Amino acid sequence: MLYPTPVSVVGTYDREGKPNIMTAAWVGVCCSDPPCIAVSLRSATYTHGNIVERRAFTINIPSEKYLKEVDYVGLVSGRDTDKFSAAKLTAIRSKLVDAPYVKEFPLVLECSLRHRIELGLHTHFIGEILDAKADEAILGNELPDIKKVNPILYTPLAREYYRVGDYIGKAHAVGKQL
Amino acid sequence: MLYPTPVSVVGTYDREGKPNIMTAAWVGVCCSDPPCIAVSLRSATYTHGNIVERRAFTINIPSEKYLKEVDYVGLVSGRDTDKFSAAKLTAIRSKLVDAPYVKEFPLVLECSLRHRIELGLHTHFIGEILDAKADEAILGNELPDIKKVNPILYTPLAREYYRVGDYIGKAHAVGKQL
Repeated sequence: MLYPTPVSVVGTYDREGKPNIMTAAWVGVCCSDPPCIAVSLRSATYTHGNIVERRAFTINIPSEKYLKEVDYVGLVSGRDTDKFSAAKLTAIRSKLVDAPYVKEFPLVLECSLRHRIELGLHTHFIGEILDAKADEAILGNELPDIKKVNPILYTPLAREYYRVGDYIGKAHAVGKQL
Repeated sequence: MLYPTPVSVVGTYDREGKPNIMTAAWVGVCCSDPPCIAVSLRSATYTHGNIVERRAFTINIPSEKYLKEVDYVGLVSGRDTDKFSAAKLTAIRSKLVDAPYVKEFPLVLECSLRHRIELGLHTHFIGEILDAKADEAILGNELPDIKKVNPILYTPLAREYYRVGDYIGKAHAVGKQL
């Protein structure tokens, strides 16, 4: 099951309105139109109950600069910790969905829950992406520039973090030589 | 919707038993127990029909060495091309599921279809991973070594390929400083 997954931080509100974040490894885009993203969570996590309750979440893509904070919010539970406060991150209320996002992270997706599928240890939540917000500082030629985002890659079994490396080719192009 | 996704190649048989492969960007692990992986495909793809028919697929993780082949199998359709032959890759019949895998790629997941969810442009297929096969050459200390796998990363909107870069920290550890 190994390959690098992009590290993502899931933002939710609990029943009392306390914002929470957790690091999630099993996240992936799953439809282009309407744009949808899936996140899989164990039912034991605080975020799981929050998504069921609020039917909304955000996916926040951190830069390497926040490596320690990102690892930290995956180590403790929102049940007994105010993780935003402990990690010195800022929760901003989304205007589109009932969830907070992380002000300091360069890329944010605001998602409304569409499907919930019980797979076993993990529940698979599929959300429609209602908006994507990017910090102007990461924009390249119109689109976000991956080197400016400088996201964190995670290898699940070995439990290691990596940077994105060298550019090696143009997609939908290099194969034309064959 | 940007961040690097690990490039994966989906292996299937068509109705006549011809093996086919296509590159897929929307792939992600979605459950640890039972281990499951999801792949989202447009219904227009040949692979989509094959998965519906055979209820099985493989996910093959290529090394950078096969960049051109991987890009190529995403450019043409299995409807009118024998892509294994054109890309000079070898189809091996899985003994566990009704799908072929790519002999030359270092990491292979053999999957049996469990769920099919229509999301819009893409259909979301969830398969249970019945086995993971790794080339001995990529094994590090028991687990596959990401640097030996040397997988390809893809940035969907900018359509670029990247390598995995530098190691930047131990997961479930660096956050303890906070």
